[in-house]
Amino acid sequence: MSTSTPPAIGRLSPDECWALLEGEHLGRLGLPDRDRPPEMLPVNFVAFEGAVYFRTAFDSKLFHITSNPIAAFEADGDDGVVRWSVLVRGTATRVRDDAEIERSGVRRLVTGSPAEKPYVIKLTADIVTGRRFVRAQSPDE
Amino acid sequence: MSTSTPPAIGRLSPDECWALLEGEHLGRLGLPDRDRPPEMLPVNFVAFEGAVYFRTAFDSKLFHITSNPIAAFEADGDDGVVRWSVLVRGTATRVRDDAEIERSGVRRLVTGSPAEKPYVIKLTADIVTGRRFVRAQSPDE
Repeated sequence: MSTSTPPAIGRLSPDECWALLEGEHLGRLGLPDRDRPPEMLPVNFVAFEGAVYFRTAFDSKLFHITSNPIAAFEADGDDGVVRWSVLVRGTATRVRDDAEIERSGVRRLVTGSPAEKPYVIKLTADIVTGRRFVRAQSPDE
Repeated sequence: MSTSTPPAIGRLSPDECWALLEGEHLGRLGLPDRDRPPEMLPVNFVAFEGAVYFRTAFDSKLFHITSNPIAAFEADGDDGVVRWSVLVRGTATRVRDDAEIERSGVRRLVTGSPAEKPYVIKLTADIVTGRRFVRAQSPDE
């Protein structure tokens, strides 16, 4: 079979979404804020067994998740030809099980921030969606 | 004066936030979804006179903004030493004024997507916040 050109825009299957997330380590957490615009902040993460794991300090993110565990997580990337984006929507919980933390690999993920981040949060996916498209040339490249 | 080392973590002033946004063209729009996790999706954008401009197709994003204009926008970047992130929270409106569209430069921004995107949306900032930190070495680099 010859190689075929992928369609210009397409939806990703959940398996494709997880495979892309497993190759990426920077995404953005989105936290609802009632009727106000959501909070959005970059986090270093690992994807493991249908969940997104990241570390946090004793900070406003930890407080927010403790009071309201509803969260979204977005990551996107680009291999030069195809751009993709994945959105995970689900429930965030603090992970206290050392065996699970060890298996997830999140301890080995050095975060981009110099702050100490001893707490591990897991976003368990209710819905994962993604799309890909062949990239148009950008004028600034 | 000798050059000084910036602090490891710091808040950015609004002027610093806008200067960083003006040098970046890929960010993520965040749309509240009542009690559910927010929608988050990548958009190509330009920052101009205290607002974020982007283009959209006749799609769910346009419908969403028309029915609920509350939105957030996040961008982040990295110069190899310092990582930064900026969050804009405000109100999204469709721009119909051709002179404003022209001045903003958004028409000249070719989006990453091949879909036609004739509508221009402007997120006017109520609050802009940002932070920077000196980047820790990541194990996968």
